Amino acid sequence: MILSALLTSVGINLGLCFLFFTLYSILRKQPGNAEVYAPRLVAEGRSQQISNFNLERLLPSAGWVTRAWRPSEAELLANSGLDAVVFMRIFIFSAKVFTFAVIVGIFILLPINYMGKQLSLDLFDLPNKSLESFTISNVDDGSNRLWIHFSAVYIFTAVVCYLLYVEYDYISTKRVSYFCSSKPHPHQFTILVRSIPASSGRSYSETVESFFSEYYPATYLSHWVVRRASKLQGLIKNSKRLYRRLVNLKSANHDRERFGRAGFMGLFGQRVDLLDHYEKKLEVIEDNVRAEQSSCLGKEVGAAFVSFRTRFAAASATHMQQGVNPTQWVTEPAPDPEDVYWPFFSASFLKRWISNLVVVVACILLTVLFLIPVLIVQGLTHLEQLEIWFPFLKGLLRIAFVSQVITGYLPSLVLQLFLYVVPSIMIMFSSIQGYIAMSQIEKSACIKVLWFTIWNIFFANVLSGSALYRVEIFLEPKNIPAILAVAVPGQATFFIAYVVTSGWTSTSSELFQLSTLVFNFIKRNICRKYDDEFEVPSVPYHSEIPRILLFGLLGITYFFLAPLILPFLLVYYCLGYLIYRNQLLNVYAPKYETGGKLWPIVHDSMIFSLILMHVIAIGIFGLKKLPLASSLTVPLPILTLVFNSYCRRRFLPMFKSYSVESLLKKDKEEQNDPTVASFHERLATAYQDPALLHVGYSGNNASIIAPLLGTAEVDA
Amino acid sequence: MILSALLTSVGINLGLCFLFFTLYSILRKQPGNAEVYAPRLVAEGRSQQISNFNLERLLPSAGWVTRAWRPSEAELLANSGLDAVVFMRIFIFSAKVFTFAVIVGIFILLPINYMGKQLSLDLFDLPNKSLESFTISNVDDGSNRLWIHFSAVYIFTAVVCYLLYVEYDYISTKRVSYFCSSKPHPHQFTILVRSIPASSGRSYSETVESFFSEYYPATYLSHWVVRRASKLQGLIKNSKRLYRRLVNLKSANHDRERFGRAGFMGLFGQRVDLLDHYEKKLEVIEDNVRAEQSSCLGKEVGAAFVSFRTRFAAASATHMQQGVNPTQWVTEPAPDPEDVYWPFFSASFLKRWISNLVVVVACILLTVLFLIPVLIVQGLTHLEQLEIWFPFLKGLLRIAFVSQVITGYLPSLVLQLFLYVVPSIMIMFSSIQGYIAMSQIEKSACIKVLWFTIWNIFFANVLSGSALYRVEIFLEPKNIPAILAVAVPGQATFFIAYVVTSGWTSTSSELFQLSTLVFNFIKRNICRKYDDEFEVPSVPYHSEIPRILLFGLLGITYFFLAPLILPFLLVYYCLGYLIYRNQLLNVYAPKYETGGKLWPIVHDSMIFSLILMHVIAIGIFGLKKLPLASSLTVPLPILTLVFNSYCRRRFLPMFKSYSVESLLKKDKEEQNDPTVASFHERLATAYQDPALLHVGYSGNNASIIAPLLGTAEVDA
Repeated sequence: MILSALLTSVGINLGLCFLFFTLYSILRKQPGNAEVYAPRLVAEGRSQQISNFNLERLLPSAGWVTRAWRPSEAELLANSGLDAVVFMRIFIFSAKVFTFAVIVGIFILLPINYMGKQLSLDLFDLPNKSLESFTISNVDDGSNRLWIHFSAVYIFTAVVCYLLYVEYDYISTKRVSYFCSSKPHPHQFTILVRSIPASSGRSYSETVESFFSEYYPATYLSHWVVRRASKLQGLIKNSKRLYRRLVNLKSANHDRERFGRAGFMGLFGQRVDLLDHYEKKLEVIEDNVRAEQSSCLGKEVGAAFVSFRTRFAAASATHMQQGVNPTQWVTEPAPDPEDVYWPFFSASFLKRWISNLVVVVACILLTVLFLIPVLIVQGLTHLEQLEIWFPFLKGLLRIAFVSQVITGYLPSLVLQLFLYVVPSIMIMFSSIQGYIAMSQIEKSACIKVLWFTIWNIFFANVLSGSALYRVEIFLEPKNIPAILAVAVPGQATFFIAYVVTSGWTSTSSELFQLSTLVFNFIKRNICRKYDDEFEVPSVPYHSEIPRILLFGLLGITYFFLAPLILPFLLVYYCLGYLIYRNQLLNVYAPKYETGGKLWPIVHDSMIFSLILMHVIAIGIFGLKKLPLASSLTVPLPILTLVFNSYCRRRFLPMFKSYSVESLLKKDKEEQNDPTVASFHERLATAYQDPALLHVGYSGNNASIIAPLLGTAEVDA
Repeated sequence: MILSALLTSVGINLGLCFLFFTLYSILRKQPGNAEVYAPRLVAEGRSQQISNFNLERLLPSAGWVTRAWRPSEAELLANSGLDAVVFMRIFIFSAKVFTFAVIVGIFILLPINYMGKQLSLDLFDLPNKSLESFTISNVDDGSNRLWIHFSAVYIFTAVVCYLLYVEYDYISTKRVSYFCSSKPHPHQFTILVRSIPASSGRSYSETVESFFSEYYPATYLSHWVVRRASKLQGLIKNSKRLYRRLVNLKSANHDRERFGRAGFMGLFGQRVDLLDHYEKKLEVIEDNVRAEQSSCLGKEVGAAFVSFRTRFAAASATHMQQGVNPTQWVTEPAPDPEDVYWPFFSASFLKRWISNLVVVVACILLTVLFLIPVLIVQGLTHLEQLEIWFPFLKGLLRIAFVSQVITGYLPSLVLQLFLYVVPSIMIMFSSIQGYIAMSQIEKSACIKVLWFTIWNIFFANVLSGSALYRVEIFLEPKNIPAILAVAVPGQATFFIAYVVTSGWTSTSSELFQLSTLVFNFIKRNICRKYDDEFEVPSVPYHSEIPRILLFGLLGITYFFLAPLILPFLLVYYCLGYLIYRNQLLNVYAPKYETGGKLWPIVHDSMIFSLILMHVIAIGIFGLKKLPLASSLTVPLPILTLVFNSYCRRRFLPMFKSYSVESLLKKDKEEQNDPTVASFHERLATAYQDPALLHVGYSGNNASIIAPLLGTAEVDA
């Protein structure tokens, strides 16, 4: 790639970004789009609906930028929770790192690279200059100037480690103070106990009761045994759908729509009054629900939520092995009641252990072999194949322009489609692992997606070749530096373009929310559905964080190889900071709170990036005939790992659990609080499966099973 | 090596063993040797001294075998503690494993190997048969008979895993029941807190007091802040030595010995009455001791032993992070007061972390590069060198026989000497790591010595070549199976000889205790010293267990390669079982108790051996042109690792700490025990540094500092 081509690409993408911004600033003012661009404000009733038409609505404005910029971190914390703050800290941290990198890279390393003669290119024809001449490849072999690169690697590592330390410290302090200022939450007082041993003649409820009242007589409060309710959940889902359809029918009130066929998808069967038909169906389902609810009460599972009087007691119960057999009475902190994820809940230790194993294997296979099915499908979508499948397209496909677009664009489209579903697959994998909380699933999926991305975008591009070839390289660790040193700089121009196209555009399209916009438009104008309950989305951390971290990896590894990438990354992070702040304020509402538990992933990813850079540096200096520099770089990854191990000892425990000091401080604060008693009462029923609490829509015979059920179990 | 040579070697070593047994059975009956062969009985006053001479004393007898055989495991447990039982279980477990291995190896694999034609040796000249013809090397390439080896590997792995599971289960149950039947020990109620943050204007003692009485108001009992007493310990050591010399002088009562020179080593200075001289010196030292003791009281270190009212409270405090900063208020279970190891005690988290790092590096360097200094020293001790150093030996060294012995034996002697000091070096390394207990140091040293042994005996012999060459092999994991498959079978005869010579002889010399015998003889007959206080030794687990496990590794890896090794191993384990039982009953007394924490090391080592066998099998089947068998072996190590990971989840937690169930059961048992109050009182002073408790030998002005000191600190 030559410089002018890069500049063209930058220009096009910059144009796209501005187009997105302009469209966004206009469209967001249209009242119909409030649900797309400010669902959070709508849900909170804070969106100002300007219904009367005026010219201002059609003019682009940059007001949203100042509005996104203005709120302080404390406001963001109050508004969106600690996770959102941590998410934004990724941008701030990366911007800090790359500001330093840009200064060193552009003002020191880039001129040195450019003045090299290794690639023997013309020095003065700047626009037609290959981008290669800005990389380390252009520095002469054995040149002493490489020592500047060497020092840059050392200094950069030191700076990044320092920033990582400061950031870890900052976020862990935030986490503790967030906990200290939190209101009493049920999950702070509750633990989840799995693998409760079955004892003959006693129900699980009695076993739990006797166990905890014997061993924690002073602090045990109540428990709630989990019931197998998957069938019930299905029924309730059905009844909800029917109920919504009914409401729609009633509100629409068109006779035309009121009558339809009762059979499959409304296409077959005799014509009936749908209103009546649905109402009857709903009643039948709700009768089933009630029957299932009462039968569910008997179907206990060997797991229970156990609540304690104090946070300290709950925490101490999760830290210690309860039963003599460590595979029984397995305890873990309970998640927030809203955060509980029921579908794959499993009480058995062995079952969870096995599904964990299976998921790990599946995940590794997916990550390593992902490109194989992609390549196969890409092969299938070639023109000839398409002509066979869709003969009527033959004429169209023969047109040169169309065929060019398709052959040029289709493979990348297929890859993008496959990539698009990966986060959902990883979420599925993580949920099969038997986590009890959505937040745990998301965190685990985030790690999976991160490694997937690094492997399938970074390594797949660098070490092009079959997946097995790529795996084999890692079976010969000795050769890794040399192989990477040859392969990585060669991909510099590709990744610069990748940052500009994928990074910039994906971020601005995040602002524009094209898919939601189109979906919303179709719903409103074609289906004419006006749902009262629309869901405010939450940030999909598991797909966003890996993407941001991948750019960090690119920036760190290419810092001394091809510093030209750095300014583009810096722009990306600044853009991302503004846009995601805007989205957090207007679009996304936090569904649950991990208390900043995502930061260790960011930290680990940065450490990995640094070590990857060191390994490449070792290879590059060897390749550039400066073996002394190569050997002198060897201590650097070791020092980085030592630094990381210190951080793990110093900060990681704070992200795993809270200290006795903090727990007891909170407990003491509430000792004399009169509201505690009522809170304790609420605790007893906080962890009921919502399916058991469901009272029905049909109205006439809504029972009060749930409250009854709750009190029956409270026995402190 | 040919069969007849092996048989000769077996014959010689068998003869040696019998010689040792005979000598032992005679010598042990001599009253003068009671301190060598039954120090434990002497210390307990149970040794029957037959002072009148009779013929029976000179006749060998095998009565000790029956006496060693007779006691049940329960008696051994009562007598020598759980660690000794676990130690003996290693022999029982290994004997079980190798009984099965012998049956399969000798009756199935050996005939198949022998009937192979690969090495094209004469089938019928048995005595001159190379031992190679009994190994897998003799099976024809690509022969279908290799499938029998393949099945043997699978079945053997399954059997070993089954036995491992049963044994882990058995020992973990033993551990729990041992705890349940134990008397109250101070260490069960106490934790060690390190890195207590310094607060201005308050002593550490006050800080600890306020912290624990604030956060554990109901259960906190007392604390004892650690003092920097290394100088004091030195002084007390000196005074002890002087005191013993004085006692010797007084008891000897020879005027000849009473007068000597007061200077360096009794060689210089004026002649004085030593009795007076020493007494004065002792008084001066003891005055110093007392001065130091009172000044020590002020020198507090940021660490304290904190005692609680219940075991549960103590355990819960060690499991949870106490302070907000995880590097402060670092807690761990306290060891038994007799087990505390003071010299390298360090309170600072950072200092311990750094010394840990340094030790890990030093340990890896020692393990990997050990053979380099050995080879250098071996080079230095060649004849020419010796002649230069000791010219007067020239004549002697020129005699052919002497020179042969020296050149043949000296290198191996040097290696043995170096190997002999390794356990002590590892103990030193482990103690620098900052463990608080001797038992922890010993356990950690045991692991270090184990890996050292596996590397420097197994791998050094198999992959002969420079240390760097050996390390490099592990940098190319892909080639490991092939390299091992070539190298390991080639060393089969060496290791068979090793089992017979080193295994059998070292075990019987353990019975014979040559060095102690000689030392004792010299002490009694030449130095004429009769110390009243002689120390009963404890089993040096850190040097014994690795040796036993190395033989297990050899047996497992050579099981299908050269089954001829198996019967010799079985004999070794039976011999070892008898001899160590005898030693445990007569010689070794337990100094401290880890509660069977050594078993996980044994388990891990067995799993490692299995996986090594699998890796070699993968290589061998490839080499023998049976690639299908090679590929089908690949799942085996993975399955073994999965099995191991299950065991780690199922059993390992039981070896790390006790469950709430067991802890509270014990606590409840003692709730109404009237002796608890006095026990709690004793707890307060249980963890004083013995140096501070020292009251002095000089008698006239023995102060009672210690008790005073104790009560001053008790504040529950």
